[in-house]
Amino acid sequence: MRVAEPTVERLVQYYRLLEQLREEGRLVVSSHQMGEMLGIKASQVRKDLSYFGEIGKRGVGYHVDRLYGHISRILASPQIWRIGLVGVGHLGYALLGHSAFRSDKFRIDALFDVDPAKVGQEISGVPCFHLNDLPEVVRERDIQVLILTVPASAAQACVDKAVESQVVKGILSFASTALVAPEGMLVYRVDISVELEKLLFFLKGGAGV
Amino acid sequence: MRVAEPTVERLVQYYRLLEQLREEGRLVVSSHQMGEMLGIKASQVRKDLSYFGEIGKRGVGYHVDRLYGHISRILASPQIWRIGLVGVGHLGYALLGHSAFRSDKFRIDALFDVDPAKVGQEISGVPCFHLNDLPEVVRERDIQVLILTVPASAAQACVDKAVESQVVKGILSFASTALVAPEGMLVYRVDISVELEKLLFFLKGGAGV
Repeated sequence: MRVAEPTVERLVQYYRLLEQLREEGRLVVSSHQMGEMLGIKASQVRKDLSYFGEIGKRGVGYHVDRLYGHISRILASPQIWRIGLVGVGHLGYALLGHSAFRSDKFRIDALFDVDPAKVGQEISGVPCFHLNDLPEVVRERDIQVLILTVPASAAQACVDKAVESQVVKGILSFASTALVAPEGMLVYRVDISVELEKLLFFLKGGAGV
Repeated sequence: MRVAEPTVERLVQYYRLLEQLREEGRLVVSSHQMGEMLGIKASQVRKDLSYFGEIGKRGVGYHVDRLYGHISRILASPQIWRIGLVGVGHLGYALLGHSAFRSDKFRIDALFDVDPAKVGQEISGVPCFHLNDLPEVVRERDIQVLILTVPASAAQACVDKAVESQVVKGILSFASTALVAPEGMLVYRVDISVELEKLLFFLKGGAGV
């Protein structure tokens, strides 16, 4: 089953919401309520979920527990991904400590930086290596995914190190710059200010031409 | 002109890319190249841009400068938004220092925290107030937008303070929890781990059922 990227994004959002609802002890939820809480149309919620084989009961909705289990299996990982985090500045620290980065799907296994005060240390229980040693360290530790929290000017050099390693398959970059990677290496960018731009656009009335 | 949310998101991405291409001194760019660099289909790029009145020349592409100016006017703001940032932890610091948060559209004008070591101080040149004083401070300073970089457990209390102020129109939350706000107040959530979940989903092959 091939799934489009925006669908996966919504699926992750449903999953997070259902996790929260479960913790609150909720038993059922309607597509309308899910849509309200996530800013997604109820019809889209129904469409997405029916695509994955879940049909809500009219006037009742979805069983929180069952739907959670279902989506959880779709998103489940066959392995625990080992992740290297490159750039231990404020953003790097923020991710290390962020609740959303505690997961049974992945584990931040190594840090990389160029700061002599950080290299060789353990930070939040994770060893920090020099960026130059990245290819060797990721090979030794079976790290296939990198998160880049480096300045834009340093991001491409990190990608190049990842390419050199020949084992990194995917990169998530928080740097606000376009990156060049060989085919077969997945590079996703998170632009943490895009949502702010969107918010301001809609606050001004959504029309500018 | 009503514009859908995903379109605005892509528009912001085009804008960022064109900004970078301009700095690199590039004169023209094709929809194919733009799509490649952003992970968007070339046909989608052409569709979006033609919707805003820009038609590329076949075999040549778009004039970087002109397209930049055009999108820049669409995204332009009639005012400089004053923003309050709530929660001066690692993520708050990261945003304060992030290049994408330097803009002529907005200015982070006040910080809020509950930590006595931070309240009353200036941090990166911005004064930090106690969260309890938020309604008063945002009214005095004409702050209509808040960014929340607080733990999930504290986020709703911040929204409630914003509601109490009666002047906050929009909130951008980095907390991984659903928030309840009155109609008319725009609340956008940034889930910084959604992209990682997506990346891992596609790395495992994109199929799980």
